[in-house]
Amino acid sequence: SAIKVGVITVSDTASVDAAADRSGPTIQEIVRQRGHGCVRSTILPDDEQQIRETVKNWCNDVENTVDWIISTGGTGFGVRDRTPEAIAPLLEREAAGIVHLLLTESLKRTPLAALSRPVAGTIGNTLVVTLPGSVKAVKENLEALFANGFVEHAIDLIRGGTGKQVHT
Amino acid sequence: SAIKVGVITVSDTASVDAAADRSGPTIQEIVRQRGHGCVRSTILPDDEQQIRETVKNWCNDVENTVDWIISTGGTGFGVRDRTPEAIAPLLEREAAGIVHLLLTESLKRTPLAALSRPVAGTIGNTLVVTLPGSVKAVKENLEALFANGFVEHAIDLIRGGTGKQVHT
Amino acid sequence: SAIKVGVITVSDTASVDAAADRSGPTIQEIVRQRGHGCVRSTILPDDEQQIRETVKNWCNDVENTVDWIISTGGTGFGVRDRTPEAIAPLLEREAAGIVHLLLTESLKRTPLAALSRPVAGTIGNTLVVTLPGSVKAVKENLEALFANGFVEHAIDLIRGGTGKQVHT
Ligand code: NA
Repeated sequence: SAIKVGVITVSDTASVDAAADRSGPTIQEIVRQRGHGCVRSTILPDDEQQIRETVKNWCNDVENTVDWIISTGGTGFGVRDRTPEAIAPLLEREAAGIVHLLLTESLKRTPLAALSRPVAGTIGNTLVVTLPGSVKAVKENLEALFANGFVEHAIDLIRGGTGKQVHT
Repeated sequence: SAIKVGVITVSDTASVDAAADRSGPTIQEIVRQRGHGCVRSTILPDDEQQIRETVKNWCNDVENTVDWIISTGGTGFGVRDRTPEAIAPLLEREAAGIVHLLLTESLKRTPLAALSRPVAGTIGNTLVVTLPGSVKAVKENLEALFANGFVEHAIDLIRGGTGKQVHT
Repeated sequence: SAIKVGVITVSDTASVDAAADRSGPTIQEIVRQRGHGCVRSTILPDDEQQIRETVKNWCNDVENTVDWIISTGGTGFGVRDRTPEAIAPLLEREAAGIVHLLLTESLKRTPLAALSRPVAGTIGNTLVVTLPGSVKAVKENLEALFANGFVEHAIDLIRGGTGKQVHT
């Protein structure tokens, strides 16, 4: 069934001028094109505490469950970039394979992808992945995650599916 | 000299029906074909505490030392998969290079390899590596680890060897 | 502007016989060839506490700031190798992308690169990267980091630059 996605744009600029957020709407558009739904979205400043609280609240809200939280921004070396630090302590299971996939695919396009410091994993039954802030990187990363039905398989397993189609 | 291997199959199913364990025997067979010995093996349910205690006990047993503990299963996104979480807190030295090698080789075969969440490292003088649960993945991962004498070099160094052949 | 580099050679042997240190001088030479400056260097034994204190002191010294600390040695599986363990607890932001870049490039040259256990990240405004001990590995790793202006971009961002040239 359709994946319920929550999108968090992390950007000091966009948090005071929503029109400046181009990567958040890009994620929402791609998610819908893939046949899934964007059930929540927000724009936050590069504030570790606000990011962490938002992710925690979304994962704990049993009435409006989210299958996949995608953040964009704050994963680089800028002095305010602390999205991975906000989210990492919440991860109950780290997904080294997803981090590896994203970095491998990004580095095929540009060596500057090594500036990214992504984290990924699960909190309860929710998958969480941090994407870079640029529209270009967001598109490339989502293409890698949707390729070969990867993210649908992952969400199916996290929800309690057998993943049988994976192992045949 | 021959590497002393311990194999832990992690699977709720196989823990109540040993005949269902195909990946554990596969590891033992490959290890023997490579000229090494399987000195211990067990089948455990996907129970974080039991996995952690077993790894800890095997590493602490000074009378029956194990050079390399290989686990199979419980590294994915299934609701019960917690092998990496069971073992990671025990690792005294993390082996990012081994994790990178396994994921790189697996992703060459299938993009679904990104579903794996492997950990690797040392506890005392024992190397510990978590492999996925499928027989196919086990074969591919072990092939990558045995290629070019990699794992023999690693064990030699962990045992206190000079690794001279590596650096020439 | 020029990057101010600090070099730490980690080696029991070189700590009692500085002439045995070939990788430290290699780093200094490459850094200068790239138009940057080596402002500090030291040789330490494979002692976790000494390595950690040195990195901490260099990062805290506001009068003689260092942009980039490069260590060489102690990242493998030798019984005394604990450079990553010395430095990891100090990292305020982990740089998964840099670790991925180094391992990917090294594995293209030799499968034995998987013996390396690098860590990378930032402490305050200082980038810290652990390189292997061999001269060959040091050269290859620095070539990967300097390619396409990668490390200059990273340092510019850590210093508070906009990184605009990166995102165009
Ligand atoms: Na990696």
